[in-house]
Amino acid sequence: MRPQDLPDEIPASKAHLRLWLRLLKTNRLIEAELRERLRVQFGTTLPRFDVMAALHRNPKGMKMSELSRMLMVSNGNVTGIIDRLTEDALVLREAVPGDRRAARVRLTKAGVAEFERQACVHEQWVSELLGGLDACDSRQLADTLEVALTVREEGADHG
Amino acid sequence: MRPQDLPDEIPASKAHLRLWLRLLKTNRLIEAELRERLRVQFGTTLPRFDVMAALHRNPKGMKMSELSRMLMVSNGNVTGIIDRLTEDALVLREAVPGDRRAARVRLTKAGVAEFERQACVHEQWVSELLGGLDACDSRQLADTLEVALTVREEGADHG
Repeated sequence: MRPQDLPDEIPASKAHLRLWLRLLKTNRLIEAELRERLRVQFGTTLPRFDVMAALHRNPKGMKMSELSRMLMVSNGNVTGIIDRLTEDALVLREAVPGDRRAARVRLTKAGVAEFERQACVHEQWVSELLGGLDACDSRQLADTLEVALTVREEGADHG
Repeated sequence: MRPQDLPDEIPASKAHLRLWLRLLKTNRLIEAELRERLRVQFGTTLPRFDVMAALHRNPKGMKMSELSRMLMVSNGNVTGIIDRLTEDALVLREAVPGDRRAARVRLTKAGVAEFERQACVHEQWVSELLGGLDACDSRQLADTLEVALTVREEGADHG
């Protein structure tokens, strides 16, 4: 563990701000690395990978609006990604009975296989990038982050 | 502290992946909240705030390319933001002697004052949003994140 280079009497708001800047930097560095590796190794993008991950977690399919909300990207972006995944036969659109405007999308068999192939390698990358921590530290850190936040996801309890 | 709900024999890669997903969620929630508050209270955006923060840390000014690299956004985006900040008289463009193609940008006096006004409130927001942690926990978490990463910023040592 590094020596702590801040004096003890530092106000909490400064410590919170330093933590936030560190969180930002950590995320940016990991995301940039994952983006690059997904591009080089699988010819895919992070948003496309995220869409496939969401669909993989929801094998019965999702509405476009659900996908957008979960991914916090614009509807337009999700639509473009789904269009291309459909062309590649990795995703299937299905009509929703009783709701003509809505359609559900889900992974095809090929989509499931392709995502699982990518997810397996993605997990190894993440583990390598966070390799400064062992399993126990990682778990503790994830738990601490969960209690840190005073803001909660909209509709998190009934999503 | 929450009970740890993962069994002990879980592989490190699963713990790392769970931590990464938690980091992502934490960042997205805080960023969404900050974006909304910056819009409502100051009529500004997060990228614009980030650009002003970078210039505030570099009172002698920065080249556009330096700004882009630091912010990891495209040159185009930074240019648009600088254009609008210049129109608002918050930023000034200055020629670089001996390098006709380059220009340095820096905050004007009004820009410094405006940024400091925003940064003060921004720090209170961050502190509120991470209010589940005290100063000591926050410091420890920031230190742990620093050792966690096996990937480093490009040019971090000579930036």
